[in-house]
Amino acid sequence: MFPAVITSVETFDVRFPTSLSLDGSDAMNPDPDYSAAYVVIGTDAGDGLEGHGFAFTIGRGNDVQVAAIRALEPFVIGQPVGTIGDMWRRLVHDSQLRWLGPEKGVMHMAISAVVNALWDLAAKRAGKPLWVLLAEMSPEELVELVDFRYLTDALTRDEALEILRRAQPGRAERTARLVADGYPAYTTTPGWLGYSDAKLTRLCQEALAAGYTQIKLKVGADLEDDVRRLRIARAVCGPDIKIAVDANQRWDVGEAIRWVQALEPYSPWWIEEPTSPDDVLGHAAIRRAVHPIRVATGEHVQNRVVFKQLMQAGAVDVVQIDAARVAGVNENLAILLLAAKFGLPVCPHAGGVGLCELVQHLAMFDYVAVSGSLEDRVIEYVDHLHEHFVDPVVIRDARYRAPTAPGFSAEMTAEAITAHRFPGGAVWTEPAMQS
Amino acid sequence: MFPAVITSVETFDVRFPTSLSLDGSDAMNPDPDYSAAYVVIGTDAGDGLEGHGFAFTIGRGNDVQVAAIRALEPFVIGQPVGTIGDMWRRLVHDSQLRWLGPEKGVMHMAISAVVNALWDLAAKRAGKPLWVLLAEMSPEELVELVDFRYLTDALTRDEALEILRRAQPGRAERTARLVADGYPAYTTTPGWLGYSDAKLTRLCQEALAAGYTQIKLKVGADLEDDVRRLRIARAVCGPDIKIAVDANQRWDVGEAIRWVQALEPYSPWWIEEPTSPDDVLGHAAIRRAVHPIRVATGEHVQNRVVFKQLMQAGAVDVVQIDAARVAGVNENLAILLLAAKFGLPVCPHAGGVGLCELVQHLAMFDYVAVSGSLEDRVIEYVDHLHEHFVDPVVIRDARYRAPTAPGFSAEMTAEAITAHRFPGGAVWTEPAMQS
Repeated sequence: MFPAVITSVETFDVRFPTSLSLDGSDAMNPDPDYSAAYVVIGTDAGDGLEGHGFAFTIGRGNDVQVAAIRALEPFVIGQPVGTIGDMWRRLVHDSQLRWLGPEKGVMHMAISAVVNALWDLAAKRAGKPLWVLLAEMSPEELVELVDFRYLTDALTRDEALEILRRAQPGRAERTARLVADGYPAYTTTPGWLGYSDAKLTRLCQEALAAGYTQIKLKVGADLEDDVRRLRIARAVCGPDIKIAVDANQRWDVGEAIRWVQALEPYSPWWIEEPTSPDDVLGHAAIRRAVHPIRVATGEHVQNRVVFKQLMQAGAVDVVQIDAARVAGVNENLAILLLAAKFGLPVCPHAGGVGLCELVQHLAMFDYVAVSGSLEDRVIEYVDHLHEHFVDPVVIRDARYRAPTAPGFSAEMTAEAITAHRFPGGAVWTEPAMQS
Repeated sequence: MFPAVITSVETFDVRFPTSLSLDGSDAMNPDPDYSAAYVVIGTDAGDGLEGHGFAFTIGRGNDVQVAAIRALEPFVIGQPVGTIGDMWRRLVHDSQLRWLGPEKGVMHMAISAVVNALWDLAAKRAGKPLWVLLAEMSPEELVELVDFRYLTDALTRDEALEILRRAQPGRAERTARLVADGYPAYTTTPGWLGYSDAKLTRLCQEALAAGYTQIKLKVGADLEDDVRRLRIARAVCGPDIKIAVDANQRWDVGEAIRWVQALEPYSPWWIEEPTSPDDVLGHAAIRRAVHPIRVATGEHVQNRVVFKQLMQAGAVDVVQIDAARVAGVNENLAILLLAAKFGLPVCPHAGGVGLCELVQHLAMFDYVAVSGSLEDRVIEYVDHLHEHFVDPVVIRDARYRAPTAPGFSAEMTAEAITAHRFPGGAVWTEPAMQS
């Protein structure tokens, strides 16, 4: 591949008026407008290939997120394409930008958008879906992508290399199995808080009919409602279907313990985000108290340092990576390696807009080249907004089919971007477009 | 006082070219340009009073920080002045903006700027310096300012009330003592990494002559240099002066332990920011290993949830609040209460631009109405950029004099704002202005 230099960074404030339908409503997020602070990276290669990436937000503040991506432009323009490990370090460790985190929140999510766009571009240039591009890299190449700063008390470069080398035998076989069978999914579609009991019942039935063996219900707003909804879901699903519940950070530690214990008769599979995503010790206390119900978190965990501690403290059973909150593919690779070291399953957070498209690549790469396992592993699936993507996820028999198109599946259609730009796009200016 | 409504929110991107002089250089921040994302809040009261506040940054990204403050404007305009507890909850818990943190980084610092500006305004309207306004509030009024969400496993509202009630006797006496004697300071002026040994020696001598009993040295870039610099400082200062060292997050856990142990012959008083501010368990491991050298952190601790854990885990000896990183006065009140509960001294982080001006109010309020103690308590002092403030700190005999002017001492002079606006201000457009 001939060398190329990054010549353009375009940003878009893209918002979907999802609050109108209560899709995505939960105990902390009553009216999200799923949004993307979207970035397109261009080069001088003349091959027409662009890198697409985005930070996911839920509406207000998406303009701040776009401003943060723009602040990274001087670091990217003029740089050679393809040295993403170096670029990651320059972006994350810039001494002045670092003050705004460090490594968390708006600036870190901005880096995620840019880093993921660079990976989208790299995969397109290689002519491979990202998961294949990553899964074909050598252990030595992969550890070069990881920044071990602040991790070495839990995971050293040598340990990471050993984990990756241990997974080398069987890569081809697991790849073939993925291509044939796909990767297991679970569905959150039945469980949004804004839905009626009748709709909950119907959506549970539809999930079973579609072949799902795990669903998820939002909880945390009202205990009586939650007991009733979980009873309904358990009655519809029977004893063998896994029903995860998700509190979206609603509780304090003591409240979380009492609430989850009240749901225990209905055998929840995991309790997700019981409290603040920053509270490592709180999650550890909750996990001790609600065992054997599993504790899951990660979609709002800000970086690898907090993931490290969640594992060191025995605070989680299920590691939920998010594609666009930590600083992109490179930091998620660090988290996959940590999870492999601690023997924990990674079950990515998805939904929102475009998150399913992204995380499928990370989970499939994990299976082929890191953990080597599908045991207790499952990717969240929500059937919203996929129609706006050029290479949307494909679910068949309740499994994600392995993507085959080159790239990171991150690219929205030009029509979707145009229609949903905020505040000038048609869905925001023409009421008839909102349905 | 007659009611008033907020009618304007003005923002300014103010930057000082401090990188030219290496003032402020440390192991992680080689060339900071001290900056303020500055906000001025106006009302319809017709009394000419404005609330001033700012988020402190070190240069690049200050524009993103300003954009984040602007995103809060719709929450503030039209609201009554003086209901700061309610405003705090609306800003911090807005479901859409919350996604960008939650409660961390750029959005949280933006809330800090706005909340502190509201306190500046409230104190000006009351005709009192902020520390007096707060110290005269009842325990019941003070706990109303605190959000106990995510804290109740460590500190309940009732426990907070009891702490404040316990401190009620003696408030008047402690206030009088503060007015007479001031609050102890330590100086970081001698210890920046960019300084020569000769300058270090001279500045240590000047600190002693000025009456300081504690100084601080930056460390972490090169062990041999650090040993030499600490040996020089100890030789100049003698055995009775406290010499704190500050690594500004430079190390991994194991490296921190080895480095601090190598400095142990020179009896450092505390090791500050040995590793990532997110690493509660890492700080706990370091503290166990370097005892009796104290561990201090906090200037980059993102919110009360992480402070809570640092205390629960026995990870720190010294709690270093920052005025403008957590969400302003209200969240710092929560942290002061946590520190009182755990019996830990609060020694505020200052320096930068305007941070000394702000934290003196918090430390003095803590002494009068929360901890009731000065034992092992000291406010950082750095003698930079005070000339740009309307009511700058006054240091006499190595102690902060108690501020007497109404407000939070947050207001920069109009001339300073005009000259330092980025990128159009005179210091940025006329090279001769930079000296």
